[in-house]
Amino acid sequence: MSEGSSGKVWFVGAGPGAVDLLTVRAQNLLAGADFVLFDALIGAEILQLAPQARQRSVGKRFGSASTDQAEIDRLLVQAARDHAQVVRLKGGDPTVFGRLDEEIDALNAAGIAWEIVPGVTAATAAAAALGRSLTRRGRARRVVIATPRTGRGEPPNQRWAAELDPADTVVLYMAAHVAQESASALLAEGFASATAAAVVYAASRSDQTLQRTTLGELAGGAIAEPAIGERPALLVIGEPARSDRVPSGGGD
Amino acid sequence: MSEGSSGKVWFVGAGPGAVDLLTVRAQNLLAGADFVLFDALIGAEILQLAPQARQRSVGKRFGSASTDQAEIDRLLVQAARDHAQVVRLKGGDPTVFGRLDEEIDALNAAGIAWEIVPGVTAATAAAAALGRSLTRRGRARRVVIATPRTGRGEPPNQRWAAELDPADTVVLYMAAHVAQESASALLAEGFASATAAAVVYAASRSDQTLQRTTLGELAGGAIAEPAIGERPALLVIGEPARSDRVPSGGGD
Repeated sequence: MSEGSSGKVWFVGAGPGAVDLLTVRAQNLLAGADFVLFDALIGAEILQLAPQARQRSVGKRFGSASTDQAEIDRLLVQAARDHAQVVRLKGGDPTVFGRLDEEIDALNAAGIAWEIVPGVTAATAAAAALGRSLTRRGRARRVVIATPRTGRGEPPNQRWAAELDPADTVVLYMAAHVAQESASALLAEGFASATAAAVVYAASRSDQTLQRTTLGELAGGAIAEPAIGERPALLVIGEPARSDRVPSGGGD
Repeated sequence: MSEGSSGKVWFVGAGPGAVDLLTVRAQNLLAGADFVLFDALIGAEILQLAPQARQRSVGKRFGSASTDQAEIDRLLVQAARDHAQVVRLKGGDPTVFGRLDEEIDALNAAGIAWEIVPGVTAATAAAAALGRSLTRRGRARRVVIATPRTGRGEPPNQRWAAELDPADTVVLYMAAHVAQESASALLAEGFASATAAAVVYAASRSDQTLQRTTLGELAGGAIAEPAIGERPALLVIGEPARSDRVPSGGGD
């Protein structure tokens, strides 16, 4: 970079996990990147799309950063001062629970150009795995994307469940570890105990698994901690979690 | 195809419009497709990714099919009987207002294999255009994806707005033509007249435009019919529609 000029930062969605679910634009930006700053849960196969770039993990996981947010902001600004093409790689889509805004504020304060490249968010990858639409006329009129996670130092709460309608499809991000409390919150909102629920682990990845259950069973502790492990997991509640048909992915 | 065997159908999300926002998997499937059945609003540039395939438009637009749904089902089954690799191309992500389930039912009844390939849905492309997260800790806790559209022959209703919370980010698909009624429905739910709203036309496409407004102005008829035209449009209501910063897309 010439003195006094800055590069540009692309906030790029890495998609749900499978390397071929990156967008073509994401792939092209990684191929031309000088510097890649990435969160935890971004797979090695995806990072290999930017072999020429300096790469730095900032270890964000479940919304709590192992690198402090202020430090991430600082790293990002410095990267854009030192490099022409900086990719800030986030799992799924950067605008869905990506905590993007703090980083954008830091770039704006430093006068650095940026752009967002949308990606496939985990909710739709989970629907693809379940073989169902998230919406269905007359039965699943709305899709509500929420998370029971709160920031570090904030008390857990179930306000995300307030006023939800049993006719809604609810997709909860980062919820597997609090599945029991999350299901109880929906039961308290009037959802039936028999409401279909599914846990989708590692949607689209080679270690993807599905667990089909009901809200009542989840509230009773149907998810065993060892099944979760370190994989990302989504809870899908409502119509799309019903199990009367499955995609036939094998053999192609 | 050998006699008695069938091909397979991939329900593929074409993303919001820009050709490089297709996933790599979508691009690969199109390149290898024998037959492509596509909705309206899929651009010519995307269809050119499958130059060797037979292509057929079924002209779906805003949820009302110009080709009858039963006829689409029949075409899809026949295509899979005649061809090895059939791509059913839908705008955005196939599981979000894609009316996928009827087509899946038809394939299951005919014993034909299928799989869903997720894509970038318009909501996140709109957020990228606005330069804002759809979620924000403490302020935009949930994202609600809905549509005021109903099926043909069904009376219009605003039940999609029931019990929504002013702290929600609301993204309405296929809503520009009923923006005034949609805004009124949210005001009736207790949303403030000053709530930020944005209309994103043709998100990610070269003819993308943004219109930033408020719920009160929308309810007063702020959207002029000629501005909508034939472009797809989303309404984004809440925190992400605020206008204090914009992505710097030019000049890269």
